[in-house]
Amino acid sequence: MTDRNDALNLDREDKLAPLRDEFRLREGLIYLDGNSLGPMQACVAQRVQQCLEKEWAQDLIASWNTAGWYRLPQTVGAKIASLVGAGADDVAVTDSTSVNLFKVLAAAISMCPDRRVIVSERSNFPTDLYIAEGLAEFAGKGHELRLIDSTDELAGAIDADVAAVMLTHVNYRTGEVHDMPDVTRRAHEAGAVMVWDLAHSAGALPVDLAGADADFAIGCGYKYLNGGPGAPAFVYVAPRLQADVSQPLSGWFGHRAPFEMKPSFEAATTIHRFLTGTPPVLSLVALDAALDIWDRVSMEEIREKSVKLCELFIELVETRCGGHGLSLASPRDTARRGSQVCFAHADAFPIMQALIARGVVGDFRAPDILRFGFAPLYVRFADVYDAVEHLRDILDTQEWRQERFMVKGAVT
Amino acid sequence: MTDRNDALNLDREDKLAPLRDEFRLREGLIYLDGNSLGPMQACVAQRVQQCLEKEWAQDLIASWNTAGWYRLPQTVGAKIASLVGAGADDVAVTDSTSVNLFKVLAAAISMCPDRRVIVSERSNFPTDLYIAEGLAEFAGKGHELRLIDSTDELAGAIDADVAAVMLTHVNYRTGEVHDMPDVTRRAHEAGAVMVWDLAHSAGALPVDLAGADADFAIGCGYKYLNGGPGAPAFVYVAPRLQADVSQPLSGWFGHRAPFEMKPSFEAATTIHRFLTGTPPVLSLVALDAALDIWDRVSMEEIREKSVKLCELFIELVETRCGGHGLSLASPRDTARRGSQVCFAHADAFPIMQALIARGVVGDFRAPDILRFGFAPLYVRFADVYDAVEHLRDILDTQEWRQERFMVKGAVT
Repeated sequence: MTDRNDALNLDREDKLAPLRDEFRLREGLIYLDGNSLGPMQACVAQRVQQCLEKEWAQDLIASWNTAGWYRLPQTVGAKIASLVGAGADDVAVTDSTSVNLFKVLAAAISMCPDRRVIVSERSNFPTDLYIAEGLAEFAGKGHELRLIDSTDELAGAIDADVAAVMLTHVNYRTGEVHDMPDVTRRAHEAGAVMVWDLAHSAGALPVDLAGADADFAIGCGYKYLNGGPGAPAFVYVAPRLQADVSQPLSGWFGHRAPFEMKPSFEAATTIHRFLTGTPPVLSLVALDAALDIWDRVSMEEIREKSVKLCELFIELVETRCGGHGLSLASPRDTARRGSQVCFAHADAFPIMQALIARGVVGDFRAPDILRFGFAPLYVRFADVYDAVEHLRDILDTQEWRQERFMVKGAVT
Repeated sequence: MTDRNDALNLDREDKLAPLRDEFRLREGLIYLDGNSLGPMQACVAQRVQQCLEKEWAQDLIASWNTAGWYRLPQTVGAKIASLVGAGADDVAVTDSTSVNLFKVLAAAISMCPDRRVIVSERSNFPTDLYIAEGLAEFAGKGHELRLIDSTDELAGAIDADVAAVMLTHVNYRTGEVHDMPDVTRRAHEAGAVMVWDLAHSAGALPVDLAGADADFAIGCGYKYLNGGPGAPAFVYVAPRLQADVSQPLSGWFGHRAPFEMKPSFEAATTIHRFLTGTPPVLSLVALDAALDIWDRVSMEEIREKSVKLCELFIELVETRCGGHGLSLASPRDTARRGSQVCFAHADAFPIMQALIARGVVGDFRAPDILRFGFAPLYVRFADVYDAVEHLRDILDTQEWRQERFMVKGAVT
């Protein structure tokens, strides 16, 4: 890669390039933060509008049947299932990732009543650890969270005391990918239950939950799946477990026959038993519409472009931004990296602010990470080129030292 | 009341009548099912549209700050607080009623570690009982659900074994209202924690949580609050408890400082500790906009009109539909009735279907209840008159015996 024309040529040859037209991205924006919040597709706004004006305003309560609201947790789940190697009936969409994690982790520890350890990583996304903590404390049987500091420690940590191994498939900060089949096999060999968090995997790279024989998985609707802010999350339960495992958030949507209004709970014997209350329909139809684009692309095509985008970014940063203290914080080995690239820098925060001010949106992850997500549905090779040019210029000119880039906000 | 003109006169004198113009109700519809799904206001569609096109599509991740997404659980909570007698900082909007009930019930039983009984009613809304069952089983300490069959049994049921009393303030089938201050006082005198479900109360009648010294409450956003299908629910925690009680669904939104991304959970000392994961923003902004109408009306005005609507309905049904086997299934005493009126009839299902076919939408509740909700924001006295005329005609002509009205659907 010597100049911008090479990047433009890659875009011309890119079979996925037309998919970008579905997204409402403002002119000039280079959006490398789809791993935090995916952008909006035009069809999503239309679908929500239809839900508001026709289904809710006109048809009111009848829409639970006529518009299929009642079946949304499964119909949307089936769309996600096809992206993560799950059977169409084995994924439901409901609640938040945190709430779903509580359910599957509770189910997991109930399956191993004589074991007291939940293994995870200190670098896991915090809410996963917080949920495990809350669950362990409430279970009141002395469950403990055993946190490893690097993947190398994993094998040693999974022993006969372990009830559940709970890992995020792609690390939210570094993008490091766990070997799902291998780790799942190790957990099972030790008699433990395997729970995967697919927040940074679903829609980002091929996942084969059934092939890996995973027990449970949960994941996020608003990152690579582009379902909108706070989109409902998904939950996967292996079909071999659905009829028997129980989870404590046993609300009416998890009942075998919710509309018989019986006073006693009888769990559904399907993925439904992992539903709880009435789902947020507006947010759910947005996610439903956002998923239709996946009919036009395979996860293999996504992965192929993702790898090319990430490799190009690393190459360009390392050749053009040398001498400024950036160091690659993601695995260099493509096979071990998700669809994001992180660089560490002592002044990562103001550097990212300066990038954002120029319309190159990635995000900062404490204490020193510049994180860039590459979503192949809409990120162009020219975006990668231009992003690095902006970064180079910001570093060369020390633009990031401006006072205005030092102020910390709240959420990204 | 002798004829339709009297009803029209009541509408002419009704100071709340102009509020109906905010709602998008289709011409000719008599909507008496707002206690199942409130209708849409024009401002809600506009607000969701703005969230889609501006906040999400244009501003993307920045909207967590700039559009106040991050603060929505509290800003929307504060609006609901003013309707239920709570301090502005004591209500949060998040998750579903079922999930919120799990949190507060878990907190409640944690407060009484030596007690093992949760008191409720067999006629409570089923999901409340299911959640209590799931919680009791998961807690694994032999908690049991003690169900009473009538309000008269309540005093006897609350004894020194009781950890929590969990009641729905207004019964979903009959509309019967519990005496909140009195029951709360009894619970406290017995050393138990009081949990109220306000699903059929918030926006329906005056509620004074603080005045009654309630410990916890939860409630629904999509009934009388008109927040849209599956709108997020609310949770109230008495300010005296917020700093100390814990709940097991300890996700990152309940952390003292979520964006420090610390591996250990430190609960917020405010209502925030009852938040869990990322909230569904599209559904949350819809509820936010739906609540603005309450600035223009007091709960006392709402109650006054509600009582008049319900009384008129009872009077007209009993004077005009006699001899057809209808019997009042709601308390006759206004003070003990919420904003709905139910009549029992052996053929309630097909009768309700025949009403719905004529554009009079109430709902059927198994096994024999015709349920009619009267939401003073948009129901007119003429609607009440017309609904009863339709009912009378359906009964007189036996129209409801048509085959097409016998088929049972799924959800209402």
